[in-house]
Amino acid sequence: MLLELEERKTKQLPRGVMYANVFRAPGKFGLEEKVIPHAGPGQAVIQIRLTTICGTDIHIIRGEYPVREGLTIGHEAVGIIHELGAGVEGYEVGQRVMTGAITPCGQCEQCLGGDQSQCGGPLGGWQLGNTIDGTQAEYVLIPHAQANLASVPDALSDEQVLLLADIASTGFAAAEHGNIRLGDVVAVFAQGPIGLCATIGARLLGASEIIAVDPDPNRLRLAKEFGATTTMQAGPDVAERIREMTHGRGVDTAIEALGLQETFENALRVLRPGGTLSSVGVYSGHLKVPLEAFGAGLADHTIVTTLCPGGKERMHRLMRLVEARRIDLTPLITHMYSLEDIAKAYELFESHHNGVMKIAIRVS
Amino acid sequence: MLLELEERKTKQLPRGVMYANVFRAPGKFGLEEKVIPHAGPGQAVIQIRLTTICGTDIHIIRGEYPVREGLTIGHEAVGIIHELGAGVEGYEVGQRVMTGAITPCGQCEQCLGGDQSQCGGPLGGWQLGNTIDGTQAEYVLIPHAQANLASVPDALSDEQVLLLADIASTGFAAAEHGNIRLGDVVAVFAQGPIGLCATIGARLLGASEIIAVDPDPNRLRLAKEFGATTTMQAGPDVAERIREMTHGRGVDTAIEALGLQETFENALRVLRPGGTLSSVGVYSGHLKVPLEAFGAGLADHTIVTTLCPGGKERMHRLMRLVEARRIDLTPLITHMYSLEDIAKAYELFESHHNGVMKIAIRVS
Amino acid sequence: MLLELEERKTKQLPRGVMYANVFRAPGKFGLEEKVIPHAGPGQAVIQIRLTTICGTDIHIIRGEYPVREGLTIGHEAVGIIHELGAGVEGYEVGQRVMTGAITPCGQCEQCLGGDQSQCGGPLGGWQLGNTIDGTQAEYVLIPHAQANLASVPDALSDEQVLLLADIASTGFAAAEHGNIRLGDVVAVFAQGPIGLCATIGARLLGASEIIAVDPDPNRLRLAKEFGATTTMQAGPDVAERIREMTHGRGVDTAIEALGLQETFENALRVLRPGGTLSSVGVYSGHLKVPLEAFGAGLADHTIVTTLCPGGKERMHRLMRLVEARRIDLTPLITHMYSLEDIAKAYELFESHHNGVMKIAIRVS
Amino acid sequence: MLLELEERKTKQLPRGVMYANVFRAPGKFGLEEKVIPHAGPGQAVIQIRLTTICGTDIHIIRGEYPVREGLTIGHEAVGIIHELGAGVEGYEVGQRVMTGAITPCGQCEQCLGGDQSQCGGPLGGWQLGNTIDGTQAEYVLIPHAQANLASVPDALSDEQVLLLADIASTGFAAAEHGNIRLGDVVAVFAQGPIGLCATIGARLLGASEIIAVDPDPNRLRLAKEFGATTTMQAGPDVAERIREMTHGRGVDTAIEALGLQETFENALRVLRPGGTLSSVGVYSGHLKVPLEAFGAGLADHTIVTTLCPGGKERMHRLMRLVEARRIDLTPLITHMYSLEDIAKAYELFESHHNGVMKIAIRVS
Repeated sequence: MLLELEERKTKQLPRGVMYANVFRAPGKFGLEEKVIPHAGPGQAVIQIRLTTICGTDIHIIRGEYPVREGLTIGHEAVGIIHELGAGVEGYEVGQRVMTGAITPCGQCEQCLGGDQSQCGGPLGGWQLGNTIDGTQAEYVLIPHAQANLASVPDALSDEQVLLLADIASTGFAAAEHGNIRLGDVVAVFAQGPIGLCATIGARLLGASEIIAVDPDPNRLRLAKEFGATTTMQAGPDVAERIREMTHGRGVDTAIEALGLQETFENALRVLRPGGTLSSVGVYSGHLKVPLEAFGAGLADHTIVTTLCPGGKERMHRLMRLVEARRIDLTPLITHMYSLEDIAKAYELFESHHNGVMKIAIRVS
Repeated sequence: MLLELEERKTKQLPRGVMYANVFRAPGKFGLEEKVIPHAGPGQAVIQIRLTTICGTDIHIIRGEYPVREGLTIGHEAVGIIHELGAGVEGYEVGQRVMTGAITPCGQCEQCLGGDQSQCGGPLGGWQLGNTIDGTQAEYVLIPHAQANLASVPDALSDEQVLLLADIASTGFAAAEHGNIRLGDVVAVFAQGPIGLCATIGARLLGASEIIAVDPDPNRLRLAKEFGATTTMQAGPDVAERIREMTHGRGVDTAIEALGLQETFENALRVLRPGGTLSSVGVYSGHLKVPLEAFGAGLADHTIVTTLCPGGKERMHRLMRLVEARRIDLTPLITHMYSLEDIAKAYELFESHHNGVMKIAIRVS
Repeated sequence: MLLELEERKTKQLPRGVMYANVFRAPGKFGLEEKVIPHAGPGQAVIQIRLTTICGTDIHIIRGEYPVREGLTIGHEAVGIIHELGAGVEGYEVGQRVMTGAITPCGQCEQCLGGDQSQCGGPLGGWQLGNTIDGTQAEYVLIPHAQANLASVPDALSDEQVLLLADIASTGFAAAEHGNIRLGDVVAVFAQGPIGLCATIGARLLGASEIIAVDPDPNRLRLAKEFGATTTMQAGPDVAERIREMTHGRGVDTAIEALGLQETFENALRVLRPGGTLSSVGVYSGHLKVPLEAFGAGLADHTIVTTLCPGGKERMHRLMRLVEARRIDLTPLITHMYSLEDIAKAYELFESHHNGVMKIAIRVS
Repeated sequence: MLLELEERKTKQLPRGVMYANVFRAPGKFGLEEKVIPHAGPGQAVIQIRLTTICGTDIHIIRGEYPVREGLTIGHEAVGIIHELGAGVEGYEVGQRVMTGAITPCGQCEQCLGGDQSQCGGPLGGWQLGNTIDGTQAEYVLIPHAQANLASVPDALSDEQVLLLADIASTGFAAAEHGNIRLGDVVAVFAQGPIGLCATIGARLLGASEIIAVDPDPNRLRLAKEFGATTTMQAGPDVAERIREMTHGRGVDTAIEALGLQETFENALRVLRPGGTLSSVGVYSGHLKVPLEAFGAGLADHTIVTTLCPGGKERMHRLMRLVEARRIDLTPLITHMYSLEDIAKAYELFESHHNGVMKIAIRVS
């Protein structure tokens, strides 16, 4: 890991003011001064220690995913409780916590019905860096703090838990919703950070063969380290190769972790009758279902899509996996930058150069 | 229904003071003056219109279930929003609402993990009339109001929704957790209010034969009205009779709705291998598992216990069943009293006389 | 019901020979003489009493669904056991039985894994009238008889159980796989025989509102009789109307029972985040997923497809629903013909005239 | 492993005759000559290569579990197909196969309904060495061969797959039925062969902390090797220690792998509200439910019991776990004897001496 931080280049700010990475217009974003938020009832303010950049953030700065001008970007964070609003109990200022990218209220129709990621309505659980100011800042306001502040055990470093907030929770959920039985065969299409976490998830849940597919040999190497039993370079015949590997039977679970017609289609083409296609990709443009792979609708297939699950209970459970040394996500953090250099971090992350997977942003 | 209310006999109270049915000591309880509560952040105060007496309340006044001296009894209510605390949104003072007997916070480890009735810890979802003042009063403070105030549609009367708060939610849950498949055979042991609701629940969920068991012919008659296909008077040979009826095969699901060794044992004795015993009874004393009926632990049995599910999402869903005329629980309300006469209502309820099932208490 | 049978017009056949409705070429089919089959080990021969014509059979005679030339069509039957092969136990010649359209072996990888409709491979459970001679004949050979002969109780007529073999098992399964919770809102797109059974299924499983959609007022009237709470004439704005009806929230479960882009798309457009689209339609041509209705893959949607479940255990369970008077499918049988007149029956069934829903074919 | 086989001491037998370990009376059993069975329709005869002794076999020879006099004992086997009955397809004489201890037919009501271990009725899936001649012999007749012959990949040795037939399938199922979510905390009571497999199963399914309890330090050491994160010597305060370890919260899943009041009770005492007690122990005498640990029936607990799952599909899936090197059960085979010396093997197995866990019996 390239963990050397450059020296602090930003100027000292007046009391009550902070730096935040703000979206202005497509292609235009960067550090700005903002007022440090205050915690209303049920809210908390976190002083960020470590955050990261997500693929979604790239869509945002490019204007491909619309957010309001002036919004602070970012939805993953480990930090210190700076202020607790009225009614938030069981926490102390100064305590180290993390929050999921998704911050459900726990009290609306959707949350109480078990759809916490769709809190209040479509996509509603995703607020940080989407509908309210996010985590690429020195401080962030956390809504529904009682449901979302997850205490970080002393034994765990910021780096060890950071990626649980989004990519691990999402990638694992892809496997959890895939109806994997002990000994099942799983194919994971795309081995970006989320796909790699889906590979880890499939392993955690008792799959036997895990076939990881990606065009990038570096990512395939990582997939192997994370538990894939077979890695396969993406290509036009990948579905055919997987069907051969499984003696024509197909896989029990196919995970789509990218959001393209090609990967979705391949996932369906390798799926056995009765199998599950678990999708965590974000699709754009169009999506066609190849009917012969779909058995014309008679193949007893299940297609399930999942938005990252959040809430402190899930974060605590995932942290327990780190504590018990069942998972180690730190190899995914290939680079680290200070908040001052976040623009450089975006540049690297977009470039896909230097084997970059995830970049941790050290804030304090 | 005997719905005649006697005239108001209680004196006019000063502003800010109300009547409440208060527990003082085993055998000692009754209407007292209490200060009307105020709603703190996240809370609401409801002016009660209709409440009822539950079997658990009888245990409380007898001292069999310990609560603190001075507590207002009762955990079911339809009423009018009187006051909304800070942060409770989407409601208006004057709006008619109901709450479940169980009032989960939605934000703790247990709630977020799906165990809302065990909010914060064992039995923790049950607060009203247990750990905080309850609903047999003119006003009640509702905790976690955002998660628990369920709006009552204008088309539905107080009486139509009152029983959803506890017995229907519990009885239906007994069926919901019973792994009933379309066409399955279900036996329901005990046809008190909860058992009758379990019978309704089994019918709602697609059982074919529903065998209702109780010693009381009046309750068996009600069971038949609510959808039981067979009724059977309780007796020492009831398990044997059910096994004969099912040609030795046993039932797919056996529901225990009382909490006695005898009913639990019979439920297990009629259960087929691979079947589910769903229990909502409250047990005291001891509970033995008859090993031959349990297949010595090799019968692939599932035993599941359920505490009443609460929260507004569930209340709304159950109210939709009433609106769609799929259920009508009003025949269970056999008597109605005013709050002034609640002592008489307890007397009748305890006596089991006059075919009493549930007594509605009209407060305002 | 038009149950008058015309007189027998077919000539008397020599011993060991029977009439069967045979597919010869697209548009060319009809009664032919065939040798009565013999039961090998594990097989049985049934003398057909009552069979029916399925939408799939129409695809077959048109050449839209390819089968081999010379195949006897048909996959639903009530009949009498004529011959039992070696190893088939617990049955007697002369006993009245029915079989599901799907006849799983119960012993292959797929069956043991719970995918009985995909017995041995894709679509493999569907053999009758597809890969082996079917039921529109005087006799039919039933494979894997031990798993597929379902005893018909004396109290039930042939007509009462006939439709369980395919359309009811399929339609109910659409509801069973729809993750319907008590009080959920369900929309069913298309009210042909299978869609109507999905409507019945949604009701059997505890839905509150059931919105039935079809262009045909006659079918909507039947839907109402079968338990739909709202009926809605199909049209370009149907999705919008349903979203309004549900106050923008959408339905919990949307059932697709036709197999068209339009109905699939509408089903997805009315589905709430976290909801389930349960599809039993047979698609042809192409199928596009409208991405905005799909939440770009982030809506926590489940799409599940189901092929008719078979096997005697399911048939017995469904027959129990008829016995317990929970369902009555006979209103779906609008016409009856003798086997001699099966060509006329096909003509009527294809024409959609005279309010035809299902036509029973009386064989003996 | 003590894998040295002694020289063959048994005499050469006439054609068609074999040695088998036969039960005669409590305390009286041993090798006898028996006629080699022939395969009827749907059956197969296997020439045994490797078998083992199960705890149940000890109950049989002691007369604690009644079987008929003259029965061949044993229900686990790897062998070579010697003869295939009519109708068994897709296999060849000479092929190496294994079968599960449970040999479901796949075609009865119970099997088709998903309760394959209760094939035909209570405990009915267990036939080998229980109701028909078993596997501690040179040849064994396998019923329902089509559903039960699982092909062993060439890459796997007999020893690598032998234990999948019973203890691994049972122990894993204890975990599979325990509702374990990613990161959950699991306690496993008793670390005999099945308990150790439950420990492996909990790990395979994504538990974080796995607390293994047993009085025997040697077994606790093995538990650690197999993935337990904490081992705890059994003792009167074990429940209290586990509750402390979990900060009073209790475990999410408690597995009972012995069948004693003490272990069952401890499992319940450490279970959190909403948690699952998964039991695979065989109980005798009596079983009492401690009501305070059971929350008087209000703790939303699930108790599930499981009989070993069988059938070739499951065996194939479990073998894939071995092939993918996700599990290695060979450390559990601590000793090996030839069939000639099976009496000595029983003696050692009963004695619990020399760290014996499982004894493989080499037959050919």
